Amino acid sequence: MPVGTQGTVKSVPQDALESLGAQIILGNTYHLYLRPGHEIIRRLGGLHQFISWPHAMLTDSGGFQVFSLSELRKVTDDGVRFRSHLDGSSHFFTPEHSIDVQIALGADIAMAFDECTEYPAERSRAEESLRLTLAWARRSLDHHRAHRDEVPWRNEFPGRAQSLFGIVQGGMYTDLRRECAERLVEMDFDGYAIGGLSVGEPRELTLEMIAEVLPLLPKDKPRYVMGVGYPDEIEQYARMGVDMMDCVLPTRAARHALLFTSEGRINIKNKQYAEDQNAPDPNCNCPVCRRYSRAYLRHLMQAGEGLSATLNSIHNLAYYLGIMQRVRASLEAAPASVAEPR
Amino acid sequence: MPVGTQGTVKSVPQDALESLGAQIILGNTYHLYLRPGHEIIRRLGGLHQFISWPHAMLTDSGGFQVFSLSELRKVTDDGVRFRSHLDGSSHFFTPEHSIDVQIALGADIAMAFDECTEYPAERSRAEESLRLTLAWARRSLDHHRAHRDEVPWRNEFPGRAQSLFGIVQGGMYTDLRRECAERLVEMDFDGYAIGGLSVGEPRELTLEMIAEVLPLLPKDKPRYVMGVGYPDEIEQYARMGVDMMDCVLPTRAARHALLFTSEGRINIKNKQYAEDQNAPDPNCNCPVCRRYSRAYLRHLMQAGEGLSATLNSIHNLAYYLGIMQRVRASLEAAPASVAEPR
Repeated sequence: MPVGTQGTVKSVPQDALESLGAQIILGNTYHLYLRPGHEIIRRLGGLHQFISWPHAMLTDSGGFQVFSLSELRKVTDDGVRFRSHLDGSSHFFTPEHSIDVQIALGADIAMAFDECTEYPAERSRAEESLRLTLAWARRSLDHHRAHRDEVPWRNEFPGRAQSLFGIVQGGMYTDLRRECAERLVEMDFDGYAIGGLSVGEPRELTLEMIAEVLPLLPKDKPRYVMGVGYPDEIEQYARMGVDMMDCVLPTRAARHALLFTSEGRINIKNKQYAEDQNAPDPNCNCPVCRRYSRAYLRHLMQAGEGLSATLNSIHNLAYYLGIMQRVRASLEAAPASVAEPR
Repeated sequence: MPVGTQGTVKSVPQDALESLGAQIILGNTYHLYLRPGHEIIRRLGGLHQFISWPHAMLTDSGGFQVFSLSELRKVTDDGVRFRSHLDGSSHFFTPEHSIDVQIALGADIAMAFDECTEYPAERSRAEESLRLTLAWARRSLDHHRAHRDEVPWRNEFPGRAQSLFGIVQGGMYTDLRRECAERLVEMDFDGYAIGGLSVGEPRELTLEMIAEVLPLLPKDKPRYVMGVGYPDEIEQYARMGVDMMDCVLPTRAARHALLFTSEGRINIKNKQYAEDQNAPDPNCNCPVCRRYSRAYLRHLMQAGEGLSATLNSIHNLAYYLGIMQRVRASLEAAPASVAEPR
């Protein structure tokens, strides 16, 4: 899922996302709550209509950004008080408030409000974070069940409901992860995410946590690993049975000159590409690789041109979406042999 | 003609320009000479191939940017010594050198190296500038005639030749303008431009200079007014018989939140548009107005998102190109009554 932080996948027009075959994009609740504000988006018909994206969308709970971006945050059992990174204003987020904001945004999938455990974390810290996350999951679910018919599009799509996913935390402690997963499954969410990964831990640990938790999550509901990852990671996790992933990496790396290609990563700013007439990825059929050379992309980056971010991002997203398309195709061709973790 | 300063119409992908019906774009010789360098572009097959624009292109002579952007410039009869605005390096441009660079870039149309007279300018200064511009026009033409078959695409398109246009200067003195035009026409360029306008003078003066010069330029060759203008100006000049104009205004204004619409100019950053669900221009059929609201464009601008420049620029270019399409249609419908200045 390409990440559309502030209601836009940075520098990529919506029609370009469509032509790449993107089926679902993310919006960040924290950012949209602060600017332009969820009430404005509600009055404008919800996030789909506001940004003109008539396809699937998912909003996160805001929890991750509260912990990573905001200042002076203070966590209590009730919720989190924090200061906006934009203007220093003070805000208080509870599970109920996060859900209210997400219902106003009206994505197809909302996320329970969780507390993301940092890495590394002592066991006692991870236990406390787990306790909060489970309590907040319960409150998120209850509030969502009571109010989810208040989405802005309830009259246009009376048969549809917003889904709510629970988020498995527990730091890098497998028993805590298992406990969290089992308790969330008892609550019966519409889908399940594994959060708190890719926060600085070695990749072996990420993999271990996913392998531990995945078998505990119902196969007939979407299983989502949040915030991953590099191209080889997303392929590996998808083949293990992960249905959904999101990451800013393809677009953020693109803005910093890093292109993912079938021949490995290249830094398009390097002098060696100054006269390279090849496509960014000679084996890629995306609109950028069909039309432009490495020399041109290198020039755009060197010259500080806005088109650089657009073209680099379109290629990287095409590369990521291409991986998932190939994985899907191979799963469809041989479902029994690859759908299970081995 | 949309302006593609550094080999890109800022923030607008080439396919978007094509879908707007842009037939020709500009490149700035000064910028491309400094970065990535004309020899690199020559080795990459020329500017068309480098930026993947298989349609018409025009390069300016570099003179205007040398005078407006560079530092410590020193003008002699032979040429201009200047320092790069990028790194302070010293360069010397003569008419012959400007032509060599433009042949290496290989646009369809190159421009004679001129000295743009500032505004206001004393008559003695305008006379001196006119003397230089005429001498340099002669040298530009002679050098171009001797070398224009050295364009990078000479083997692919053996039947085609790069055109060279002369540039009428003369400040705001009608007799100097007339003298310049007559002398240039005697030299027999492939087309003629009127330069040194829109440099700070009142619009009445711009109009007076164009009205004075235009009848002296051959009707069977393109007549080009450089660096104009606002929407009502370009319509007025086109109806007077001007065939070509270029201006950074639609794209530069777009990046600063200014949209040109059928209802007048709007600053899309204004709070009044925060919840405005209308298209940027309700009477416009461009891809941006068909898909996005003023509220969304306002949010993108407020949030500092790169997509803001892209969408605003696409709309403004559509608005400008739409004006010219309407003028062309009305000229074709009633050529005799409007093709002549009245």
